[in-house]
Amino acid sequence: MKVVSELLELRSVRSGLESPVGFVPTMGYLHEGHLSLVRQARAECRSVVTSIFVNPTQFGPKEDLAAYPRDLERDLALLNREYVDLVWTPEPETIYPPGFQTWVTVEEATQRLEGALRPGHFRGVTTVVTKLFNCVDPDRAYFGQKDAQQSLVIRRLVQDLNIPVKVIVCPTVRETDGLALSSRNVYLSEQERQAAPVLYRALTAAQLAFLDGERQAEALRKIMSDTVIAEPLADLQYASCADPDTLIELESRVERALLSMAVFFRKTRLIDNLLLEE
Amino acid sequence: MKVVSELLELRSVRSGLESPVGFVPTMGYLHEGHLSLVRQARAECRSVVTSIFVNPTQFGPKEDLAAYPRDLERDLALLNREYVDLVWTPEPETIYPPGFQTWVTVEEATQRLEGALRPGHFRGVTTVVTKLFNCVDPDRAYFGQKDAQQSLVIRRLVQDLNIPVKVIVCPTVRETDGLALSSRNVYLSEQERQAAPVLYRALTAAQLAFLDGERQAEALRKIMSDTVIAEPLADLQYASCADPDTLIELESRVERALLSMAVFFRKTRLIDNLLLEE
Repeated sequence: MKVVSELLELRSVRSGLESPVGFVPTMGYLHEGHLSLVRQARAECRSVVTSIFVNPTQFGPKEDLAAYPRDLERDLALLNREYVDLVWTPEPETIYPPGFQTWVTVEEATQRLEGALRPGHFRGVTTVVTKLFNCVDPDRAYFGQKDAQQSLVIRRLVQDLNIPVKVIVCPTVRETDGLALSSRNVYLSEQERQAAPVLYRALTAAQLAFLDGERQAEALRKIMSDTVIAEPLADLQYASCADPDTLIELESRVERALLSMAVFFRKTRLIDNLLLEE
Repeated sequence: MKVVSELLELRSVRSGLESPVGFVPTMGYLHEGHLSLVRQARAECRSVVTSIFVNPTQFGPKEDLAAYPRDLERDLALLNREYVDLVWTPEPETIYPPGFQTWVTVEEATQRLEGALRPGHFRGVTTVVTKLFNCVDPDRAYFGQKDAQQSLVIRRLVQDLNIPVKVIVCPTVRETDGLALSSRNVYLSEQERQAAPVLYRALTAAQLAFLDGERQAEALRKIMSDTVIAEPLADLQYASCADPDTLIELESRVERALLSMAVFFRKTRLIDNLLLEE
């Protein structure tokens, strides 16, 4: 496994990799969710490239950029065990040198949910993903369904800008109690960690109602929010039942929906989602 | 010479071209300026691709999109004579299908001069150029110095997004009387055509003063504007003496400058520029 930080080094090692090349962009502090992406890339591609880059431009001014957990040594050991060929660990100044002034923006798909609550977040994501794709030149790129809106936005980005990369979205990996894996779970106190599966409980409660015949979007949202409100440590930010393609909130009969939610535990913000289909 | 309009067809023919591939994006209605770019690409590359696409998103609502001159048959004959390998003539719906919502924006470099007077123009340019690059996958791309700010903006775009394309800017081609070639010259009446070299006369008058020792930016701007104002058919929009890298207007001693101007002849808007260096 080669580990490089400079761009010229990356391009040089990349040019020697066999195609197809699978790419897993990450912000590090890897967990089984990331590793499931790496394994799928490994199974489908001749070469696997991973990047580790905590992208400053996708954090809001009041968000947790400085506190974001990092452990490069552990990350590299984990990736090595998965037979990754190349890890790119660029410095922020490599990605955003002085004078940087170009942004990639996906419009409608970023207006709602996470995009509405985290202004500028998706502009940071789509800009860095465009840059990482141009640097790594992968054939396939792997993202997690855990960040449902991000996956949708990246699909839109790739389609709209004709980026020659196939986007593959992999299932959310969960703890045995249902909590979706996230690097931010490390922020939770022991008590909060006990309470955190409430997101998944809320989603599955709504799913169960749907399977039992409940088709009113508002009723599904109420099941989710009631479940979260019953948990004293949890502070619900939103519970959404939206069109999975446009993310517009559904108001009447539901046939397909993305159920999604964001919940605070003190300052720690967790998200999760589930796709409903008849 | 292959001529294709569909994207899949383009990618298929492109994949059979020998590297390096040179690319000349155009809006058609080709003149010797475009052909000089094609010839330079032909001289430097194993394969040459040209696109002909009148990009709607770089025209303002009050600009000349509908009237923009077109003559595909003549364009193809000219390109064939220059041994172009592949011409791509996409339809607007191929480039901007329903649901399109992703934009590429270069910020500071588009705030002044053409960018200030044509809101949205450069966003259209940088978005379409990013898309064309992703579709054609060239090694080198050729642009004209006639559109000085556009060349600067595209260099910035390519650098900021790590697009693996070398941008080459070629000299402005002029009529014998100094008028810079432009597809829009066809709009000029006979009288206006007689008057149009005033742009080049103004630029060279300022250049001459500079070579004679004039180093005050304001004095150079005045030479340009006085020259244009003396021409009754010409209506000066701006005469600029700016830093060639930032396009910020120079206010004191000039060592290097981009002299540039925009002049109306009735509704026809012409631009031209000249680089000053000590």
